[in-house]
Amino acid sequence: MMRFKTLLKHPADWMSGGKGDGSSVVVTSRVRLARNIEAKPFPGWADKSNRIDVLNSVRPAVEGLSEMKDAFSQSLDELTSVQKQVLVERHLISREQAARGEGSATIVNRKQTYSFMVNEEDHLRMQAIRSGLKIREAHEGLVKIEDKLSESLPLAFDTRLGYLTACPTNVGTGMRASAMLHLPGLVLSDEAGPTLQGVARMRFAVRGFFGEGTESLGNLFQISNQSTLGESEDEIITRLERVIGDVETYELNARQRLVEKDPDMILDRVGRAYGVLKYSYTIASKEALNLLSLLRLGAELGLFEDDGVLRTCDLLLMDIQPAHLQLHAGRKLDAGLRDAIRAEIIRGRLQSLQPPAIGKLKPDNGGYPGERDHE
Amino acid sequence: MMRFKTLLKHPADWMSGGKGDGSSVVVTSRVRLARNIEAKPFPGWADKSNRIDVLNSVRPAVEGLSEMKDAFSQSLDELTSVQKQVLVERHLISREQAARGEGSATIVNRKQTYSFMVNEEDHLRMQAIRSGLKIREAHEGLVKIEDKLSESLPLAFDTRLGYLTACPTNVGTGMRASAMLHLPGLVLSDEAGPTLQGVARMRFAVRGFFGEGTESLGNLFQISNQSTLGESEDEIITRLERVIGDVETYELNARQRLVEKDPDMILDRVGRAYGVLKYSYTIASKEALNLLSLLRLGAELGLFEDDGVLRTCDLLLMDIQPAHLQLHAGRKLDAGLRDAIRAEIIRGRLQSLQPPAIGKLKPDNGGYPGERDHE
Repeated sequence: MMRFKTLLKHPADWMSGGKGDGSSVVVTSRVRLARNIEAKPFPGWADKSNRIDVLNSVRPAVEGLSEMKDAFSQSLDELTSVQKQVLVERHLISREQAARGEGSATIVNRKQTYSFMVNEEDHLRMQAIRSGLKIREAHEGLVKIEDKLSESLPLAFDTRLGYLTACPTNVGTGMRASAMLHLPGLVLSDEAGPTLQGVARMRFAVRGFFGEGTESLGNLFQISNQSTLGESEDEIITRLERVIGDVETYELNARQRLVEKDPDMILDRVGRAYGVLKYSYTIASKEALNLLSLLRLGAELGLFEDDGVLRTCDLLLMDIQPAHLQLHAGRKLDAGLRDAIRAEIIRGRLQSLQPPAIGKLKPDNGGYPGERDHE
Repeated sequence: MMRFKTLLKHPADWMSGGKGDGSSVVVTSRVRLARNIEAKPFPGWADKSNRIDVLNSVRPAVEGLSEMKDAFSQSLDELTSVQKQVLVERHLISREQAARGEGSATIVNRKQTYSFMVNEEDHLRMQAIRSGLKIREAHEGLVKIEDKLSESLPLAFDTRLGYLTACPTNVGTGMRASAMLHLPGLVLSDEAGPTLQGVARMRFAVRGFFGEGTESLGNLFQISNQSTLGESEDEIITRLERVIGDVETYELNARQRLVEKDPDMILDRVGRAYGVLKYSYTIASKEALNLLSLLRLGAELGLFEDDGVLRTCDLLLMDIQPAHLQLHAGRKLDAGLRDAIRAEIIRGRLQSLQPPAIGKLKPDNGGYPGERDHE
């Protein structure tokens, strides 16, 4: 069984920046299915022995899956609050699950591409994460797993309603599919608002980095389906992938227009972000995420020679979050100390990174008379 | 005779940062004396032939001074408007003088420590600039020069009023003595306002970087005497040097308190200024001056290994101003292009400068658990 420390040491497989299989706009795709065991009370109505009963049947079934070899598997009461918060920051468990204790468990595979929450709002929530726009692949992976699980677990299913869930908003497919999009081009062009309002009018939810009710940070936006009833999984995924593809096109067009209209502005924003991240000694989470977003944009536009910038950004995105910082420091930290340690970590990771240069963006090195012409 | 190009190539002797003879607070001291020729109409009342008449007697007298060997000497109508503006930016002529043409002249010695304006508001305005708090030395230099000049030039003097000047606010001593102070400590501690209001209550004028009516930029403030009547030069200089000494002490105390209370804040501000200046691709004058001020503060607090930082800041302070940029580029530039060239020049000058480090400020390298402890 994988230990918590081991889980942390390995970045999730879907933080793929720089591995080449991601998209420059769609960072990750996620699908989760909510499932329940027949004739057992939902976790919110269950007493402790009911919950332990469900846990004792679901947990071994999940651990027995071939996909979950050497998985991380912990009862929530065995984790400290900082450890739980770290799992939330990695999108491996929900905030709701982090509030649970005995009778609830979390199981995560080695690559962190599958995570299972037992006795969150439903008996079982299974999640698949992939890098890039791969909602369909993520869903197919879960369906395979569900098929295996259903051999040993009697899943609550109604032929008219579909899968039964604790909350009526999930009844039917029990599926929430989403993608995390990085939209600095639309934000810098003041087009993110109108574009995402258009998405919302098509019955999709648009949220910030941490889901429902959270502010957008680092120009990251999450688009997900709202309805689980009246459409098949396939129809939902088709509609969702189409709208995400559209937003991706708008974003790429916005970037292209910015590069053509004002390459110096882009280089300036990326250069300043690099300078501040590399040499600040105290930095709040929000500012850091927004500057990392600009670094990532620079990497995507070819302003950095180093291929590792995307990956550095992805890893930092996780590592500079409050619980990650506290785990790293080995103790509780107040906000001031977190900001200082965050800056120190970023400085360290950027130490060997060369600054952005005009590169592909502006091959002729500009047309104005500069210092070098007047030596 | 020195050419304009030669004048520009040599930084003024009083831009002494790093030479060790300046102060970390008082950047420069300046004294100017307004003098007029007896029985000749003041420039504002004179016709062209009167002005040329005065110019023809004053200019050779000034050029003949031993202090003015190989001086720069030009009639204002021989200078382009960009060249005149450059002289204004170097504090060698006034804005008023820059508006003049035929019949007015400017004479500047090789070291740019003395400059003479013929037929500005008065027939002759002589200015001495020194680095550090050296108002008395600057004044003594001018008095020696005046003694020599008065051998050939009959200066208008009234035994009751003193020196006669075109504007009554200068009658008496005809002297304006000032110092330019760099006060980042007071500004960062929100104490600059109250301190300088106290100075103003003692009948001294407090102004920004470019004198009367100009905003403070780069945390630079100019303190000068307001009255020229009723006190001797010696009394004025004694009072002025005392109040400037007081402000210097307040500033040094403010810096000390900041270093003791919040060394990371200081390092952060200096580090960010370094990062932005080094990697921005477009920067407005105001932002650049304010960031250079922080770099200078860092240098004064020992955060840079390189001894040349103060000098780099002083030179940039001049070279990034609009007319300097246009002269450098050889053509008129709109604001956008100026901001791009300004950024390019700064990047170039900072290229080999190592980033600030904790150095003297915080010898034990802090006490929080950082990245390096957890490898």
